[in-house]
Amino acid sequence: MKIVIVGGVAAGMSAATRLRRLSEDAEIVVLEAGDHVSYANCGLPYYAGGVIEDRNALLLQTPESLASRFRLDVRVRHRVTGVDAAAHTLTVADLATGEEYAEPYDRLVLSPGARPVVPPVPGIDRALVLRDVADADRLVAGIDGTSGSAADGVPARTAVVIGGGFVGLEVVENLVRRGIAVTLVELADQVLTPLDPELAVRVRDELEAHGVDVRTSTRVSALTPTTAVLADAAGGDVDEVSADIVVAAVGVRPDTELAALAGAALGPGGGVLVDEDLRTSVPDVFAVGDAATKRDALAARGEGGHATTLIPLANLANRHGRHVADVILGRTGMRPSVGAAVVGVFGLTAASVGRSEKQLRAEDRRYRAIHTHPSQHAGYFPGASQMALKLLVDPDTDLILGAQAVAHDGVDKRIDVIATAVAGGLTASDLADLELAYAPAYGSAKDPVNMLGYVADNLRSGDTRSIQWHELDGLVRRGVTLVDVRTPAEHARGTVEIAAVRAPSRALNVPLDELRDRALDEIPAGTPVVVHCQVGQRGHTAARLLTQLGYDVRNLDGGYVTWRDATRATAEAAGDARLSAVR
Amino acid sequence: MKIVIVGGVAAGMSAATRLRRLSEDAEIVVLEAGDHVSYANCGLPYYAGGVIEDRNALLLQTPESLASRFRLDVRVRHRVTGVDAAAHTLTVADLATGEEYAEPYDRLVLSPGARPVVPPVPGIDRALVLRDVADADRLVAGIDGTSGSAADGVPARTAVVIGGGFVGLEVVENLVRRGIAVTLVELADQVLTPLDPELAVRVRDELEAHGVDVRTSTRVSALTPTTAVLADAAGGDVDEVSADIVVAAVGVRPDTELAALAGAALGPGGGVLVDEDLRTSVPDVFAVGDAATKRDALAARGEGGHATTLIPLANLANRHGRHVADVILGRTGMRPSVGAAVVGVFGLTAASVGRSEKQLRAEDRRYRAIHTHPSQHAGYFPGASQMALKLLVDPDTDLILGAQAVAHDGVDKRIDVIATAVAGGLTASDLADLELAYAPAYGSAKDPVNMLGYVADNLRSGDTRSIQWHELDGLVRRGVTLVDVRTPAEHARGTVEIAAVRAPSRALNVPLDELRDRALDEIPAGTPVVVHCQVGQRGHTAARLLTQLGYDVRNLDGGYVTWRDATRATAEAAGDARLSAVR
Repeated sequence: MKIVIVGGVAAGMSAATRLRRLSEDAEIVVLEAGDHVSYANCGLPYYAGGVIEDRNALLLQTPESLASRFRLDVRVRHRVTGVDAAAHTLTVADLATGEEYAEPYDRLVLSPGARPVVPPVPGIDRALVLRDVADADRLVAGIDGTSGSAADGVPARTAVVIGGGFVGLEVVENLVRRGIAVTLVELADQVLTPLDPELAVRVRDELEAHGVDVRTSTRVSALTPTTAVLADAAGGDVDEVSADIVVAAVGVRPDTELAALAGAALGPGGGVLVDEDLRTSVPDVFAVGDAATKRDALAARGEGGHATTLIPLANLANRHGRHVADVILGRTGMRPSVGAAVVGVFGLTAASVGRSEKQLRAEDRRYRAIHTHPSQHAGYFPGASQMALKLLVDPDTDLILGAQAVAHDGVDKRIDVIATAVAGGLTASDLADLELAYAPAYGSAKDPVNMLGYVADNLRSGDTRSIQWHELDGLVRRGVTLVDVRTPAEHARGTVEIAAVRAPSRALNVPLDELRDRALDEIPAGTPVVVHCQVGQRGHTAARLLTQLGYDVRNLDGGYVTWRDATRATAEAAGDARLSAVR
Repeated sequence: MKIVIVGGVAAGMSAATRLRRLSEDAEIVVLEAGDHVSYANCGLPYYAGGVIEDRNALLLQTPESLASRFRLDVRVRHRVTGVDAAAHTLTVADLATGEEYAEPYDRLVLSPGARPVVPPVPGIDRALVLRDVADADRLVAGIDGTSGSAADGVPARTAVVIGGGFVGLEVVENLVRRGIAVTLVELADQVLTPLDPELAVRVRDELEAHGVDVRTSTRVSALTPTTAVLADAAGGDVDEVSADIVVAAVGVRPDTELAALAGAALGPGGGVLVDEDLRTSVPDVFAVGDAATKRDALAARGEGGHATTLIPLANLANRHGRHVADVILGRTGMRPSVGAAVVGVFGLTAASVGRSEKQLRAEDRRYRAIHTHPSQHAGYFPGASQMALKLLVDPDTDLILGAQAVAHDGVDKRIDVIATAVAGGLTASDLADLELAYAPAYGSAKDPVNMLGYVADNLRSGDTRSIQWHELDGLVRRGVTLVDVRTPAEHARGTVEIAAVRAPSRALNVPLDELRDRALDEIPAGTPVVVHCQVGQRGHTAARLLTQLGYDVRNLDGGYVTWRDATRATAEAAGDARLSAVR
């Protein structure tokens, strides 16, 4: 059997090597339009930043090494220009010689990846992108001042990065590492849009703490040879900032050029539509990796197994590659996908899995949100620092719909554990029972993930009812008593400020340890009560106590910290002048 | 309802606070024989080592704080001396006054924990243990030279630690941190017996690299005021080492004194036998935490849900506490347990979940072992270092039976992910599909856990057959061709040495990239072949290739690295003189 794979990076090369390991008989041809195969895409920003010093470290395999080890016929600088699916034949252009030739196949695997989206603004030609090794070379030359509009050998001092997603943030960090003053321009009203705003605000803080000029709700309206003109969301120009280099990291869209040549159908979101065994709509043509749709593990019930999604992540691409090899050789079955991702931003880590609250709201799904702020390890062990954790739960089934975390330590572990729980079909309450390896330097006897399970279980059972930060204002306006159960010192340092209660008074402050004695005297009967503490834990105890005293009580989810982060996120999104006061 | 809880640390105090949160009406009495409740046991070694500087950081709650917040009647220095289960009445001695009084209960929760085992040897009275705050105070005084046999204000310079388990290793590390020369004496033929020897040997290396004198297969036969007399396994004295202080950390046994007073039945292993809702054999008497048995999640089929085990870990104790509160107030259902644990040893981390190979062999269970040695994150990203990972799989069901890991980074995350996979009922092959958050600083596009799944899947499907390091000698003697598919340079640096092949020749060296061309000429047909590489990955590719060429092939699991570690572990266990040569 002759298998032709178009695209020689993550998914394509995983497919090729797996095919060879399974079959010495298969004829395997890999066509790659670029100069390199099997390189480390995810390392490119770090090469630009000098973290990875040796360019060769990015080149994991070469056509030669793949030929000797796997007997693969790898042809770089070969572009597919035509697909005759009926005849099972490709037209291939050898970019080195300019010649075209016909290449027959029995099975065709399309692995073209995704292309960076470039905003269509005047002067955009000078913007760099970061998709392959040649892009990284151009970025390094730009940083060093040996190419681009400057090309004077003077290192870049200023940069504009367009797009504050995963790749954009990695680029920002690495430009700062090279001593460059960076302006980050993001069209949305927050950075890192896969996260909800009250978590993403911490990432923004970290960027600003490292001197990055963060401009959200802002677009680049034009590029000059040395500057970027910035506009607000409405399109009015607001500023012009220096930009020795410009990097566009706005996102990617599936590369569907090959699929179009082959006549393969596209799915929702514009990816090449594939079934659970990665077959396109065209016989004997498969698609894998960032270009292909994924089955959505978290689709709302009713959509069944047919819902598809786009998740352009390296881990899924590699898994696709292995799976398509299995399918071609007669094996089947790949799990639907949830998407789990992580990014480091200076010392901070942000990670997520599955749906965000924003997404669930956009899908009009029912959900329950849980915010916690535990230490990454035992609080009494040196180095303990606070995490921001968020869990999204289906209130009907208690199944986990998503999770997010931002902190200086321990984030990737907790998101991976929750991703695994999702794969295992565990409920949110089941997280309480997880046995996670504990010693004081690594976690807590009640790990942050266990605590999420405790909270979920308390909500599921009805032992506690919570309200979200964005519900507080409305509730207070309708008339509730807001009780801060922290200590007077904590209360004095800052508390929730709701327009409705700011005058005549802020929240009533009754410390938890005095609540049992003072509640009946000081908290009006017959009015609903909202309690809050710093992170939600004392609030839970207070809510239980007051419930048993006959009050109608809700606990502010995530406490003052979530409210403060969310309020700051809202203020920043609004460009609100209250910003510095809240902070 | 009046609930009396005996023992005010992890499980007991979790039960008490949960009970109060659920019920303001309950009368809750906590009796604790010691001076402190709710202290941080797991932090004690680090307080002794000066990592945790403030002793108060260990005391998470006091009787006063628990009274004001949770209205708990907490009585320290109160010991239960009698239980009349029929009359539902305890006899309690107030250790401060010497008075005894009767304390009735409706429900009794026994949470006495476990007691350190002390080896019965002459002079053992001077050995310190580390169970509670008073023990930690004594250890600090011993380190400072302000108590004990020396008590001269001269800090201890030498120490003997008896027992190389989790607590023993933490004590060792912290004594070294205080500048003390430590001899670690372990009766077993390896340190950290929950791990299999080929992984534990790396922990031993780390200890020795930090100057610890590690004596395995050794016992302390007597203590003098300034030394410890060491004996070999047969009991013959072999050495006498200086010991300004001695710490016994041999292990713990469930404290069953209270259960005996109550007439409660014990289970296998000597813990207080409880059902899945933590009820003992005596009506209205519950037992929780280290003293109580756990249901065994990994029992062999046929034993069903009745198999019990002992897992003295803080996370399960806390979970027990919460669960017993739920049961007392009419709720039910706790998952069976697997046990997950982690320990830091200087810069190294060792962790495990579920069964070890040794345990499975002792239980006469069928299993499949998988060893891998991946980097904790992308190899091209700075700081990549090699992990030793091991997975144990039920070959009939493909379910995960256990996992172990030793490395400088990334260990706790992978063990927690696998523990979560076990809880979710995922198979070993399912690990291949886990979506784990990836960026180059955090993992790999094919995470180490995914790779375990790949290997498991290849073994399950029969695509690869492996052999274990301990099977190699026997196989080679029966006549196989051993082929090293690494490069000649790697081969020259060290390769497997089997008695049977050392003369006339060691393994045949045919590098993987030349194997396709050379195999038929150089590898004898008709004889089984064992291939090996450095860590098992190239070996897999080689095995697939040779299988397709018609050979009967097995791949040495974990490659040369596992074989080398295991051989060194065996040599050290045997006190073998080859030790230094192999190393």
